[in-house]
Amino acid sequence: MLELYDLAGAEEDRRFSPFCWRARLALAHKGLEAKTIAWRFTEKDRIAPSGQGRVPVLVDDGRWIADSWAIANHLEDAYPERPSLFGGGASRALSRFYNNWTDAVLHPALIRLTVLDIWRHVHDKDKDYFRRSREERFGQTLEAVTAGREERLTGLAQTLAPLRLTLQAQPFLGGAAPLYADYIVFGAFQWVRAISDFRVLAADDPVAAWRGRMLGLYDGLAGKAKGYPV
Amino acid sequence: MLELYDLAGAEEDRRFSPFCWRARLALAHKGLEAKTIAWRFTEKDRIAPSGQGRVPVLVDDGRWIADSWAIANHLEDAYPERPSLFGGGASRALSRFYNNWTDAVLHPALIRLTVLDIWRHVHDKDKDYFRRSREERFGQTLEAVTAGREERLTGLAQTLAPLRLTLQAQPFLGGAAPLYADYIVFGAFQWVRAISDFRVLAADDPVAAWRGRMLGLYDGLAGKAKGYPV
Repeated sequence: MLELYDLAGAEEDRRFSPFCWRARLALAHKGLEAKTIAWRFTEKDRIAPSGQGRVPVLVDDGRWIADSWAIANHLEDAYPERPSLFGGGASRALSRFYNNWTDAVLHPALIRLTVLDIWRHVHDKDKDYFRRSREERFGQTLEAVTAGREERLTGLAQTLAPLRLTLQAQPFLGGAAPLYADYIVFGAFQWVRAISDFRVLAADDPVAAWRGRMLGLYDGLAGKAKGYPV
Repeated sequence: MLELYDLAGAEEDRRFSPFCWRARLALAHKGLEAKTIAWRFTEKDRIAPSGQGRVPVLVDDGRWIADSWAIANHLEDAYPERPSLFGGGASRALSRFYNNWTDAVLHPALIRLTVLDIWRHVHDKDKDYFRRSREERFGQTLEAVTAGREERLTGLAQTLAPLRLTLQAQPFLGGAAPLYADYIVFGAFQWVRAISDFRVLAADDPVAAWRGRMLGLYDGLAGKAKGYPV
């Protein structure tokens, strides 16, 4: 039996963690059914057996696994007979750079556009924690962080250049079909979609076309989830 | 018989094109001997059979192939019995993002630090062409582009974050052993090393340790080439 602790907003079905979306799509890729359990930022106790305080946390037959990268590796190793998340060969090693680019470049760029929208959607009991911890991190109010965001879309478009050039040449980062590298990067856009009506991609951006393909995967798993039109 | 047209500076053995280094290391990875032919920017006629005017150009038994990515793909497909450049499976598709990140992010960051050093090392007959074409591209003199470069090293270090995080976790981008993804990114540092004594990496940067491993590959192919100490 598989259970996934999954970050939820004020509404239980608003699931907005980019890291949790990596895990959910990895599970779907493997064709594994998992029960997702709505979890809020301040519910550290509920995931204490994982030895840390963040989601996603996967519980696989009693074993607790934290961290999206560790979860992907666990799924790949524990279910080798199912479709490969990495695509075989050296692809697992090559996927790590996608993880680090997304965490170190893409997420920081997106959160500076949307962090106030996240705050609006988190559960009431998380609101103080979220604002305090993020304002401490940014050294600014959430309002100040997101101010003038329209003018920063050009910078975002430039940040996305390597992604755009790649998706102009092939339908998915993994080639003809999606792989874990796609889920890593897509998680960022699904996060934005879940909590913000701010359009971060131009309609004619090849990245937007890829996002559309990703939203449709696995019977629309991501596309049917609660969020704003993109 | 394999021949590679390879960009040279004023001295015939100063080979400084990052794209040509991708091809040279790809050939070495495959264990293929190729004669490199020194070529200068303004010698477009000599590579006319390739249908364009830039190097690397590989001539494989009379067939002319331009563009480093096309050359890597040609070598992988024409010599399948030799060590794989991509590492099998979906790795070829996953390598494309490295190519685009290097071209769209890493090269532009490095050239703004070193373009004047390149100009100093190009052949006399290339100097006017190089200065004019680059100043047109930047809309500034080469001197203005590189001014205050010391202060931009912090920005470069930040640009390298995804690379650094990856190389903290594994010895090569390809995992335990180098793959074409490593050659793509390393070509940029070999380019800098060939024409500049400006230190772009701190000695304790994990990226520098990886560069050291790359310089030692294939009996020091890159490390023994003409350049500045790093």
